[in-house]
Amino acid sequence: MSSIDMIEAAAKRIGSNGRRTPLLSSPFLDAIAGRRVWVKAECLQHTGSFKFRGGWSAISAIPEAERDRGVIAFSSGNHAQGVAYAAKAHGVPAVIIMPADAPLVKQENTAALGAEVVLYDRETENREDVARRINHNGNMTLVKPFDNDYVIAGQGTTGLEIAEQAAQEGISKADVIVCCGGGGLTSGIALALEAKAPNLTARPAEPEEFDDVARSLASGKIEANTRISGSICDAIITQSPGDITFPILKRLCGPGIVVSEDECLRAVGLAYERLRIVVEPGGAAALAAALFHPEASDGDDVIAVATGGNIDADVFAKALETLKG
Amino acid sequence: MSSIDMIEAAAKRIGSNGRRTPLLSSPFLDAIAGRRVWVKAECLQHTGSFKFRGGWSAISAIPEAERDRGVIAFSSGNHAQGVAYAAKAHGVPAVIIMPADAPLVKQENTAALGAEVVLYDRETENREDVARRINHNGNMTLVKPFDNDYVIAGQGTTGLEIAEQAAQEGISKADVIVCCGGGGLTSGIALALEAKAPNLTARPAEPEEFDDVARSLASGKIEANTRISGSICDAIITQSPGDITFPILKRLCGPGIVVSEDECLRAVGLAYERLRIVVEPGGAAALAAALFHPEASDGDDVIAVATGGNIDADVFAKALETLKG
Repeated sequence: MSSIDMIEAAAKRIGSNGRRTPLLSSPFLDAIAGRRVWVKAECLQHTGSFKFRGGWSAISAIPEAERDRGVIAFSSGNHAQGVAYAAKAHGVPAVIIMPADAPLVKQENTAALGAEVVLYDRETENREDVARRINHNGNMTLVKPFDNDYVIAGQGTTGLEIAEQAAQEGISKADVIVCCGGGGLTSGIALALEAKAPNLTARPAEPEEFDDVARSLASGKIEANTRISGSICDAIITQSPGDITFPILKRLCGPGIVVSEDECLRAVGLAYERLRIVVEPGGAAALAAALFHPEASDGDDVIAVATGGNIDADVFAKALETLKG
Repeated sequence: MSSIDMIEAAAKRIGSNGRRTPLLSSPFLDAIAGRRVWVKAECLQHTGSFKFRGGWSAISAIPEAERDRGVIAFSSGNHAQGVAYAAKAHGVPAVIIMPADAPLVKQENTAALGAEVVLYDRETENREDVARRINHNGNMTLVKPFDNDYVIAGQGTTGLEIAEQAAQEGISKADVIVCCGGGGLTSGIALALEAKAPNLTARPAEPEEFDDVARSLASGKIEANTRISGSICDAIITQSPGDITFPILKRLCGPGIVVSEDECLRAVGLAYERLRIVVEPGGAAALAAALFHPEASDGDDVIAVATGGNIDADVFAKALETLKG
C-alpha cells in the first residue's frame, strides 16, 4: 500500500540514477501571478518527465529472477520513455503499447531507448486488451502508468525534493499544483508532503473537458471524461483517476484547478521565455493554473510542477506565437 | 589578481542567491558525438546566463559606502541582465549601455530588472566612450563584462561546480568546452579547474569569423576580429580577449574550437529536443563543438557549458526548423 515508507524506499533505489530537478523562478512570472511562483522542473528529468521516477521505482523492485521475462506498459508517451529507459538500464526487455496519435517525438524516443513499440487506436481499441493479447501467458510484469504502488512511490520522490527545496527557499505554506492525469504523481506528491511538509497542499490541475479528477474530488466519487483524446495536453488525458490513486487524492488534495488549452500554450511560451525550459502543454497545466488562476490559491507562494517536456516542434512553435504582441 | 581564492570568496558571497545549475546529458547526444556529452546548463541560472555570477560577485564586493553612487556596465545583453539583477538585489542604481542591435528580449529584460538602459550603435560608436560620457565624474563603479578580477572570480564559480559535478559523475578526464567572448567565463573556469580538477581542461569555442581567442591562443598574442557585429551569436562577439583574461587563457586552456553559425543553430535545436533547455546561439557554441567537432577532443567524456538562454522567439523558431528531415 502506498506510503511514505515506500516513497523513501523508492528514493533509495533511484539514488544517483535520477536527477534532483531544480526549483526555478522568475520575477516576471511572479508579476503575472501576483505572488512568488516556483516551478519544479521535472521536464529536466531523464527522458524529459517525472515518469522516469515511477518507471525506475517499479522496475528496480522486480525480483532478479523475474526480470528476464520483461515488462509491458501502456502510455501516451512519457511513461513509455520512463519505463523504456529504466528497463534498458536494468537489462529488462520492454514492450510499450502507445496510442497511434501520441506525439511522434515520444514514439521515436521510446523505440530509440530500446523498447518494442506497439501502436493502438485510442478511439476503437482498449489498451488493456492490447496488453493482454501481447502478454497472453501473463509472464511479463505489467507496469501500469499510475495505479501501481511502486509507480506512485517513485513519482512521490518528486514530493520529497519539493519538501526539501521549499524549506531551503523559506516557503512555509503553499499550494503545490500538479499536472494530473490518472493521479500517480499527484497522489505520490501528496503523500510525501503529508509526511514531510504538511503546510504544503497538493492541488491537481487539468485541462477543460478532461477534468475528471477535479469533478471526482468535487463529487467524492470517481468520475470519468466523455472524451479521451484530441487534446494538445496528451500527457495528462486519462479516463478517470485510479482505484489506488483516488482515495489518496480525496484524503489529501485541495480542489482541482481547470485550465484552458490556450492557457497551457501560453504557459509553455512563458516557461520558454522566463525560465528557459521546454515544457509540453500537458506539463504546463500546473504553471497555467498558477499564472492565470491566481484566485484559486492563496498565500505568498505557489509551487507548480512542470511535469514533462516532450513536445513536437510544430506545437512548440505555436506556443512561441503566444508571446507576440 | 584573479585566483582560486578570489573564486572561492565569490562563491561565498553568491551563496544561496545563485543557482547550482544541473549537469545534463542525453543518450541521443552521446550517440551524435560518439562519447558521453555533459551540458552545464547555465541558461537556467538567474537572468538566463552565467553573467549573474560575475555581476553578483562584482557588486557584492563594492564597499557599502560606495554603493549609492551606482554601477555602470556595457553589454550586448546577458551581462546587462546579470548586473541589473544583482544591482537591484543590492539596492544599487545601475545604468547599462547596450548595442541597439542587441536582441529585444535582452533589452526589455534589462529595463524590467530596474536598470536604466542606454543604447549605442555598435558600428559607429565606442561603448567605452559612451560609458565615460555618462560617468563623466567617475563616481559610478564600472563593472566591465570580462576584464575585471571580481567578474572573472564570479564566472569561475561555474568551474567550482563543474569540478564537483564531474567528480560525482565519475568523469576523471575531459575537455570542458566554454562559449567564449572576452574570456571572463573561460578564464574563471580554467582557474577553478586548475585548482580543483586538474584533469579537466578548459577549451574556448567561438563562431567562425569571430575566432579572436582561438587565433590569439594559436599565435600567443592578443588578436582582434575585423567584424564585431552581425552574428546570431551576439552573446560572445567581442573584439579580442582581455588584458587580464588572455594570460590566464594562454597559460591554462587547450586550443580554441571554431564552429559555424549553422552548427550553433542545430545545437540549439538539439538542446531543445534532447535536454529540454532553451539555449541561445552564442550559448550553444560549446555544445556545437562537442557534437559536431568530436575530432577536436579526445577521451570518453566532454563537458560543454551552455552559457545562456536569452533568445528571441523568431531565432528559436529557426533552430526548431533544423530538426526537420
